[in-house]
Amino acid sequence: MSGDRNVPALADSVRTTADGVEILDRRVYPFERRWVHCATMEDVAVAIERMVTQSSGPLFATTAGMILASREARGAGPGAAADRLRAAGHRLIATRPTNNHIRDAVHAILAATVDGPLAGASGDDLVAAVEKAAAEHDEGYRAGSRALGRYAAELLPDDARVLTHCWGDAYLIGAVQAAEEMGKRLEFVCTETRPYLQGARLTAATLVEMGYRPTVITDGMVPAALADGLADVAMVASDRVTMDGHVVNKVGTLAVALAARAFGVPFYVLSHAPDPLSPGIEDVEIEHRDGEEVLHVLGTRTAAEGTRGYYPAFDATPPHLVTRIVTRHGAFEPARVADHFTSTATTGTGFHHEENPAR
Amino acid sequence: MSGDRNVPALADSVRTTADGVEILDRRVYPFERRWVHCATMEDVAVAIERMVTQSSGPLFATTAGMILASREARGAGPGAAADRLRAAGHRLIATRPTNNHIRDAVHAILAATVDGPLAGASGDDLVAAVEKAAAEHDEGYRAGSRALGRYAAELLPDDARVLTHCWGDAYLIGAVQAAEEMGKRLEFVCTETRPYLQGARLTAATLVEMGYRPTVITDGMVPAALADGLADVAMVASDRVTMDGHVVNKVGTLAVALAARAFGVPFYVLSHAPDPLSPGIEDVEIEHRDGEEVLHVLGTRTAAEGTRGYYPAFDATPPHLVTRIVTRHGAFEPARVADHFTSTATTGTGFHHEENPAR
Repeated sequence: MSGDRNVPALADSVRTTADGVEILDRRVYPFERRWVHCATMEDVAVAIERMVTQSSGPLFATTAGMILASREARGAGPGAAADRLRAAGHRLIATRPTNNHIRDAVHAILAATVDGPLAGASGDDLVAAVEKAAAEHDEGYRAGSRALGRYAAELLPDDARVLTHCWGDAYLIGAVQAAEEMGKRLEFVCTETRPYLQGARLTAATLVEMGYRPTVITDGMVPAALADGLADVAMVASDRVTMDGHVVNKVGTLAVALAARAFGVPFYVLSHAPDPLSPGIEDVEIEHRDGEEVLHVLGTRTAAEGTRGYYPAFDATPPHLVTRIVTRHGAFEPARVADHFTSTATTGTGFHHEENPAR
Repeated sequence: MSGDRNVPALADSVRTTADGVEILDRRVYPFERRWVHCATMEDVAVAIERMVTQSSGPLFATTAGMILASREARGAGPGAAADRLRAAGHRLIATRPTNNHIRDAVHAILAATVDGPLAGASGDDLVAAVEKAAAEHDEGYRAGSRALGRYAAELLPDDARVLTHCWGDAYLIGAVQAAEEMGKRLEFVCTETRPYLQGARLTAATLVEMGYRPTVITDGMVPAALADGLADVAMVASDRVTMDGHVVNKVGTLAVALAARAFGVPFYVLSHAPDPLSPGIEDVEIEHRDGEEVLHVLGTRTAAEGTRGYYPAFDATPPHLVTRIVTRHGAFEPARVADHFTSTATTGTGFHHEENPAR
């Protein structure tokens, strides 16, 4: 996708080379354009754990990490190579528990190789197959994001002023591109999204790249901004949507949803699909990260000494606060988001988990 | 109050000397203990505008600034001296429009001097009178804060876990000291309060000084923290309370109120008194500050280039989201906060605006 006028840097931020994997460091972007070199699958796992990349980044890092794992299994016999690939999958899934992209990417690649048609393949035979499965999974995700973006764009009025929280990544880019194709003019208000400032950095920088001039507010200003009429739609991505319509997304999303409800602003959630392995919110592990991260901004201490930080990385928004959940199959009422799996809409992505295995 | 074991640095942060006024710089506290020297009334006004001090600081800075203005009027005849003092009052009131402390302090000093018993005094005769009126106003505020603190502490259960937003200053200190005198044990969760981080810096540092170990969260984490049971009471100060129970306070307060309501947590507001000159929220000017401040933290750029910031310094919380408004006369239902002025409770502070001039 590189070189396309409309493709922002963050849409192509994990690159597999002959030497390993290069991951654009989202912790410092856009102030620095630093690429983290991962020579091994383990390096990729550590990079994900350390938040070098997030949002859709871990998906692409995972498929790339699985490619490195297959290279590392060269020379191994069939059983050992499969074990090695499965162990790599376990390692990658363990990096971050809440987003289901990593888990789904691992399962897709294993299903297409050692847990599927290449069950008896030796290590040497696996590399090309894993590369193919990885590319298919990546492209399925991109195609799904484009489809989702079209459904999302249909919900936006012309001249919509869109409030974002955190970084919607491929979903947001898909929605903006689709709205542009529909001739809709948009404006954006972005929460900064502490502690990592994904909104002020990633969302804002990407929208600037795409030709907009977003307004940045602090996370506490959402109700004030809505009271002042700054936005008429709130739109966020999600790390996981449960089958009963709960939305798990970057902490602060629930605060946006509460404000949107209080001011009568529709609250739209973008997600490839609900997670069939998460019937309800009790099935989702909410990741807690080191509270020290809350006490700093970009490495500078912000809180008084003698304090401790508390850092739930995600929060859960209940279905009654959500207007629509937009998947690659359409826009669903949250209580009926499971209809995604029986929807007649198809995107032809070949994306895995197209069927609901829980049924 | 200095030297008292229980008096934090911020409770004594404006000091008048023979040379001028020293103001502790709250923009960098507690990371630096820098005092800004103000040689003239104009220096004081500029310091308030530039946020060297805030919360109760502008009240003390205003009374100190009026002392400097009276010194600057030495040698002037009666009419010129009075004009000079009134002009100083105008200048100080113009520094920040939302908080009524500055306006009330100016009016109190003028009422006790050139607009009252010293209407015909020359400049030389005014200095001592202004110093006396300033000291009385300061002490009235401190006494009122202690009274308010006792009423607030009565509302807190033992072992209360108190969520704060921004910096409650003398009100918060008064409540904590009163709770301690009642033998109540407290814990604190403090929002960091972007963009100036008053919660992470001023509230947290002061609570550490007072022997607590507060937990700091980002502004967007309030609903997540309440969902996790981290706090069972939310308590904030306010810059202005209208006679019909609207609460104007640091932006983000409304977000805390919405979250508190969603999770069934009482939302208490501390204010010396409702403002008789603000019958409703439409009578309050909400200060908007330079949006550039939202794009930085402690001087470090946090937002992508090409963005603009939006910075409403305050938001307005409607009465239906407020559990009680605690004044120096008691704890009132928000819709009945005007009863403050007919309440039999008295604190003997001699504080001005004890009577409601709007009635």
